[in-house]
Amino acid sequence: MLRSCAARLHALGALRGLPGAARPPARSPGPARRSLFLEADFHKDSSLPKPSWSKDMRLLFDQFMKKCEDGSWTRLPFYSYKAVQNVHDFIAFIHGSLPSTAKLVDKEQLSQAQIFTESFKDGLGFEYVMFYNDAEKRTVCLFQGGPHLQGMPGFLHGGAVATMIDATVGMSAIKAEGLVMTANLNINFKRPVPLCSVVVINSHLDKTEGRKLFISCDVRSVDETTLYSEATSSPSSRRKCGPSPAPLTRC
Amino acid sequence: MLRSCAARLHALGALRGLPGAARPPARSPGPARRSLFLEADFHKDSSLPKPSWSKDMRLLFDQFMKKCEDGSWTRLPFYSYKAVQNVHDFIAFIHGSLPSTAKLVDKEQLSQAQIFTESFKDGLGFEYVMFYNDAEKRTVCLFQGGPHLQGMPGFLHGGAVATMIDATVGMSAIKAEGLVMTANLNINFKRPVPLCSVVVINSHLDKTEGRKLFISCDVRSVDETTLYSEATSSPSSRRKCGPSPAPLTRC
Repeated sequence: MLRSCAARLHALGALRGLPGAARPPARSPGPARRSLFLEADFHKDSSLPKPSWSKDMRLLFDQFMKKCEDGSWTRLPFYSYKAVQNVHDFIAFIHGSLPSTAKLVDKEQLSQAQIFTESFKDGLGFEYVMFYNDAEKRTVCLFQGGPHLQGMPGFLHGGAVATMIDATVGMSAIKAEGLVMTANLNINFKRPVPLCSVVVINSHLDKTEGRKLFISCDVRSVDETTLYSEATSSPSSRRKCGPSPAPLTRC
Repeated sequence: MLRSCAARLHALGALRGLPGAARPPARSPGPARRSLFLEADFHKDSSLPKPSWSKDMRLLFDQFMKKCEDGSWTRLPFYSYKAVQNVHDFIAFIHGSLPSTAKLVDKEQLSQAQIFTESFKDGLGFEYVMFYNDAEKRTVCLFQGGPHLQGMPGFLHGGAVATMIDATVGMSAIKAEGLVMTANLNINFKRPVPLCSVVVINSHLDKTEGRKLFISCDVRSVDETTLYSEATSSPSSRRKCGPSPAPLTRC
């Protein structure tokens, strides 16, 4: 579904200039897209170092920033909004892509909406930053899972790991094709991730066949010796969809 | 991995009396298990109706409570703890099952630990209740995804959906075999789930082969007409593991 791209519509720096990046449907011009973007909170790029980041997280961040100096890698900023101010504009935007399910959205409830991965106080939830290498079609996410993401005592909940895998493979797809929807996410859990540790999620666009993308991903320890999880995902690009998109299950 | 059972070690009502339910390793008797259980917060069963539950959630809850009257279904209470008071006891408990990875747990950080699905204020995150039918080997989860679980504007993040699928198939496995670890989670996303709506996650133990369980699951709208997701999971029971468990990837 479209969630892979949508959770990152707020990563505006990443989306702008993308091939096939989000465009308003022909029948709902300008306003929806404008408000979607202009109401975002540009004051906080949550992928920059914070006091809550561990030493491992900072070291890795510095290493990747070093790799960015020659232009082979780029850091992907993450701008978020705290609440949906103009719900009607959002609904109009969504309606162009998902007409049948958009009707089911309760507009009243959206006033409290927050992006899932940004719903925690600093250091308690999802702390992460992504880097992208266009030549290699590779997205790397440095992820520090905070203490409020616990499953088994002392370890991250599998759902929290799945969330960040989804976010990373989604970003790989977005960088390659713009708007996408993830049809499948297949995760092999090898061993649990210790709470508050830092892991490296390495995602690679393996190939594309028509509108279908094939992305692989693994989750490893900072020193790369421990494999925590492997995953594959197969999003579909929506770049050839017209203003009246095909049903979700077919597109 | 063990997370499927572990996140629900706190569902004590569900675990007690289970076939193969969690037992302390032979080399770490009594205390670890005792403190694990006794320090839980028994005052709050978070799967009971709350003011934040929608009308749909309450209606479905009442329907399933009605089904419980003849004993065919049972509600699975969920007791949580807010913080790990005695970290050493927890680590000892974990160490018996996961000796290699347990060493990596940062004991200091655990003082802030909270169960992922319980880390949100009432109504903002994961609101859910599970019911179990032993004869049918079926677990049903009624799930209302709050506004802080947003992915695409107006819809749940795929990771939030994956989290609840994981929790539900994990419970199916726990009810059948006690301690389990989920090796694989394969989700087909059909369409996005509207934020704050209620969905029914229906999980079924299809078969067991040795220690391996095969569980299928789907996520549907309240009226069952809309299929949001389908998933399969293949946890492995640990019931035949001795006090020196085999490596995670083999067990």
